[in-house]
Amino acid sequence: MKKSLGAKALLCPCPVVVVGTYDKEGKPNIMTAAWCGVVNSKPPNISVSLRKATYSYDSIIEKQAFTVSIPSDNYVGETDHVGVFSGKDTDKFAANKLTAVKSDLVDAPYVSEFPMVLECRLIKYDDLGLHTIFIGEVVDVKVDESCLNDNGKPDLKKLNPFTYIPAEGSYYGLGELLGRAFQAGKK
Amino acid sequence: MKKSLGAKALLCPCPVVVVGTYDKEGKPNIMTAAWCGVVNSKPPNISVSLRKATYSYDSIIEKQAFTVSIPSDNYVGETDHVGVFSGKDTDKFAANKLTAVKSDLVDAPYVSEFPMVLECRLIKYDDLGLHTIFIGEVVDVKVDESCLNDNGKPDLKKLNPFTYIPAEGSYYGLGELLGRAFQAGKK
Repeated sequence: MKKSLGAKALLCPCPVVVVGTYDKEGKPNIMTAAWCGVVNSKPPNISVSLRKATYSYDSIIEKQAFTVSIPSDNYVGETDHVGVFSGKDTDKFAANKLTAVKSDLVDAPYVSEFPMVLECRLIKYDDLGLHTIFIGEVVDVKVDESCLNDNGKPDLKKLNPFTYIPAEGSYYGLGELLGRAFQAGKK
Repeated sequence: MKKSLGAKALLCPCPVVVVGTYDKEGKPNIMTAAWCGVVNSKPPNISVSLRKATYSYDSIIEKQAFTVSIPSDNYVGETDHVGVFSGKDTDKFAANKLTAVKSDLVDAPYVSEFPMVLECRLIKYDDLGLHTIFIGEVVDVKVDESCLNDNGKPDLKKLNPFTYIPAEGSYYGLGELLGRAFQAGKK
């Protein structure tokens, strides 16, 4: 028997990413977002949704660019901190001892210490209410060489990304391999 | 040192959901989607992105509605199957011994056996290329009573959702609790 919980955005699990931008003065900033996802394969598009009140909001529009750095699970504290404080009055790179690297492809910085980054060119945005959805075209993905397997592909057990569960307000790591897509269903 | 992997939609981890629709004749259908995410909190909006070639595509537009059922990790095989075959020529509920339940709020079915469902009214869609993003307003979330904790909130360790890693083409379960949001960063 199912119980009604009301109209809430309780999708789970959600990714946890850190959105990187430069402000008008070229100061690098980051903010954490769990309202994000892949929205198209060709061209490769991802979305991140931010509140208008965030410091990152104007920066994305001004620079027409953002990055999405994916933290590994040893950076849960830093990632949460980056989601709590504002770039208006905090240098969140310095406060968390993180290093801003300028993307060579888009006008936005990413987090050196996080193992994976998607560099995005803004293609459109749409005000949905409290949040605005920003859709970016992924122009490149960069991964730490130490997180690639022998075939040159990212290895989940080296990346160690984590996830956010809105219903609990909690972060969880990833567990066991359960199956391969387009194979598990053939059994 | 980071290595470039090219322009790909390698966000991770992605949610794994099953989108439920009725076709023109009222036949229930489901398809698996990992291109989905929360896009707004107020009103609560989620997105799912589907290819035009899917049988679900026309159904969502026709009925202006869809559901998003969240499978638990004991349904990996069924979920993968639902993502491989088409509702054009397969009754995927019957093939996977799953039960279609008509939503009492929107004109779409959900999967009885999956522990959580978000019932959505279509509010807009946008053709991005290979995929079209559908944005739905969540009108209710329903959860199996057996998956709620003593406070009436969903308990992740009872829901047991799983995740998709595009870089590997693999499904992974969730692991350990790593921290609480808006608390972990205060340490």
